[in-house]
This record gives sequence, structure tokens and C-alpha cells, in this order.
Amino acid sequence: MRVVLVHTSHPGNIGASARAMYTMGLGRLVLVAPAKFPHPDAEAMATGAADVLARATVVPTLDEALAGCALAIGLSARPRAFAGRVMSVREASREAVARTRDGDVAIVFGTEMSGLSNEELAQCGIAATIPANPGYSSLNVAAAVQVAAYELRMAAGEGAVWRAPRFAAATHDEVESLYGHAARTLVDLRFLDPRRPRRLMVRLRRLFGRAALEREEVNILRGILTRIDELIGGGGRR
Amino acid sequence: MRVVLVHTSHPGNIGASARAMYTMGLGRLVLVAPAKFPHPDAEAMATGAADVLARATVVPTLDEALAGCALAIGLSARPRAFAGRVMSVREASREAVARTRDGDVAIVFGTEMSGLSNEELAQCGIAATIPANPGYSSLNVAAAVQVAAYELRMAAGEGAVWRAPRFAAATHDEVESLYGHAARTLVDLRFLDPRRPRRLMVRLRRLFGRAALEREEVNILRGILTRIDELIGGGGRR
Repeated sequence: MRVVLVHTSHPGNIGASARAMYTMGLGRLVLVAPAKFPHPDAEAMATGAADVLARATVVPTLDEALAGCALAIGLSARPRAFAGRVMSVREASREAVARTRDGDVAIVFGTEMSGLSNEELAQCGIAATIPANPGYSSLNVAAAVQVAAYELRMAAGEGAVWRAPRFAAATHDEVESLYGHAARTLVDLRFLDPRRPRRLMVRLRRLFGRAALEREEVNILRGILTRIDELIGGGGRR
Repeated sequence: MRVVLVHTSHPGNIGASARAMYTMGLGRLVLVAPAKFPHPDAEAMATGAADVLARATVVPTLDEALAGCALAIGLSARPRAFAGRVMSVREASREAVARTRDGDVAIVFGTEMSGLSNEELAQCGIAATIPANPGYSSLNVAAAVQVAAYELRMAAGEGAVWRAPRFAAATHDEVESLYGHAARTLVDLRFLDPRRPRRLMVRLRRLFGRAALEREEVNILRGILTRIDELIGGGGRR
């Protein structure tokens, strides 16, 4: 996967694009005739992605940037004059990942002011659009790189996120014992009237059932109930 | 939907975030104690989204930024100490869209250097993570706003099948009040030692956060706490 930036005006955007790529695991950046590069603004905006900038290739034309690619996907807000396939960036990312089997896939971004020209877009096999506010669809170029790189990562199946470890689930018996204990304590608290129970226990079962209680949580809740029993002198544990 | 930026250092990032929001159709920006705002850099980076900046609200604390919200979602790369539900930004966006039926949903972004603190994240009901390069997951804050706003737009437009909750969900404020009440009553019960709290409240937040409490459930639990307060003569409601 290579990211191609065409005629970028502001070096800060090149740096921000490098950072956006690297956060999503992309490292190959090709610059077509950038206005100013290398430049301190690019390095400042790249922060931890300095390596991506250092390894960036600069070429004079889009044609050279796309040489040897299996597929080029051009980002465009309104690809009106485009003759090829137009897709959302999500669909295009899936296509891109599938086509890496055939060789390099290029994702191409135009200049800040006007995006890719019709001629530049015509060199791409697919035009990809980022769904946006029809009244203001002008994403910053590095922001567009961030969204596209994110969708490429998601399409590649690397959308896993860090998860808190789950602890051992409580057994059916442990949870039933908790409900029994809670009901007795609630009667002792005179919060639950056994002759007119309404739907209190049903509601509590529904709430804790949704949470899928862990064993340690059952222990905490039973500890609280036992402490209430001791203080009010009830027989919750009987 | 409101976007909350906490302690943003660089005004340019505030402007770039406003632009990112507006490209995805979001307009309500809340700034918690920004280092510099208003500022010419913010206006320069906002480009066509100047209106979003002009209408931005500045508040001194995150608590004020979240007042009245039905749900707060905090963006975090590695929410290790978080007690609530952790999801990918795609899942969280679907949840956010579904929950707008209950009221405002806040999407919260931390400071440039270190993101949201554990204390800030603890005020959110959901932690959302943008899948990223494990070796370099540091998205620029405006780039993170762009990805989240994009996913919110996709979630809203796709009309994904999400069942409305049968009952009204508890708001952020109601749930926080419940935790406050529970902590006081547990101290009165001498089950929670304020000098050695261990992780009791974190565990309870995690459990109830997973359940996504409804308003009526909060009322039931607070009724139980009040009854305990009355019987043990504590001041849980003070």
C-alpha cells in the first residue's frame, strides 16, 4: 500500500499525513512535486512518524508515482467527470485490501485547494469518496489521509482494540444465591413487602442479568448485603 | 451530539477539530479550559468551519461540559483503568447514534500530550478506541475527531439495526449521583473505608456501566440506599 500526495502546498500537511499513515500502520509515502519538501513544518507535524518522512519518495509526476501499481484509488469529494467506478472510502478500502494480492495499491490525494484534477483522477481505477456534509465537504488533506488509512486498517481486519480482561463469570447457583440473599435482606429492610412484592426482584434480576455478573462481583454484593444484615440485626443469611 | 475537547494546548488543533466536525455535519463544540482560545491559529485552521468556532462554548470543568448529557463517550488509546464498557469507535458510534433518542451524547477528547486522564475517562460511560498501529497509536487530536465524526456520520446514515431501549436510560448525572450516594452509604455501613478504598467503587462502576442503567433502575437502587440510610441512621443522603 502506498500513499500518494499530489502537489501538496503546505509541508505541515505532508508531516500530518505521515503521522496519520503511521498511526494506522502505513509507511510508504510518495510525494508528487510538493511545493516545499523537506521542510521543518513537515517534521514538526510528523512527531513520532519522522521515519515515514525520511523514507518518503519525491517524484515529478503522478504517472511516475503510480508506476508498477496493480490499482490506484483516487480520493475525491465529487468525482463528477470520472468514468470509472465510484465507491465510498469504506468499500474502496475493502477493494484495496483484496487487490494487494495483485501488487501495490496506491491511494491518491490531491492538492489542498482543489483536490485531484479530472486528469489526475482519470489515472485512477477507482474514485473513493468520504461521506461528508453536503454543505461543507472540504476535509483537510491530512484528515482525509487519516480517515482513509483508518478504513484500510479496518478493512485489513486489524480493527481489534484493546479490551479489559474479563474475570470469571458467576455460576447460575451463585447468582441465584445472591438473589435469595438480596430478597431476604430487602424484606428485613422493609423495602420489599413479601405480601406485595410488585416486580422488584424481577427488575433486579433483569438489571444484573444484563450485566452478566462475575464471581467477584457476586462476592462484593453479598458482602454488602451481609454488612447490612449485621447492622440492622436482620437474618438475611438465615 | 456535542464534541468536548479537554485542556487543548494548541489553538490550531481546536480549529482543525472544528473543521473535522463540520465536514461530518457536527456543529456543537465545547472546550474545557483550553490553553488559548479564541486565537488566530484556531481561525486559520477552521477554514470554512468558522461558525462552529464562533458558537463554541468554553467551560472550566469536564463536569460542566457533560451536564445534562444522556451519555458521554471518551476517546482513549488504552483505557486500562476504565471501569465501564470499552468499544471500538465504530461500535461506540452506533451506540451514540442510538442513544441520541435519550438526549445529548458527548464525545470527549483529551489533551494533546496524554489524552484523557483516568479521572476524566471515569466520568464517561463508554471508552472508545480507534484501532491503530500498536507501535505508534498517537493520532493528532483533530485527526481523532475526524475519524470519530466520520464514524458517527456513517452510523447515522447506515441506519444500522439498533433496538431502542424499552425504558428510558439514566442520564450521566443520574448515574453519577447514584455512585455518590452508594459511596456514602457504603462508608456509613463501614463496608468502604475512605482511607483504604481499594477498588470497590471502580468495580461497582464497571458492573453497572456494563449494564447501561435505566432511569427506573437508578431509582430502585437509590430507594434501597435511602432505606439503608434510614435504618442504620447514617447520613447517606447528606
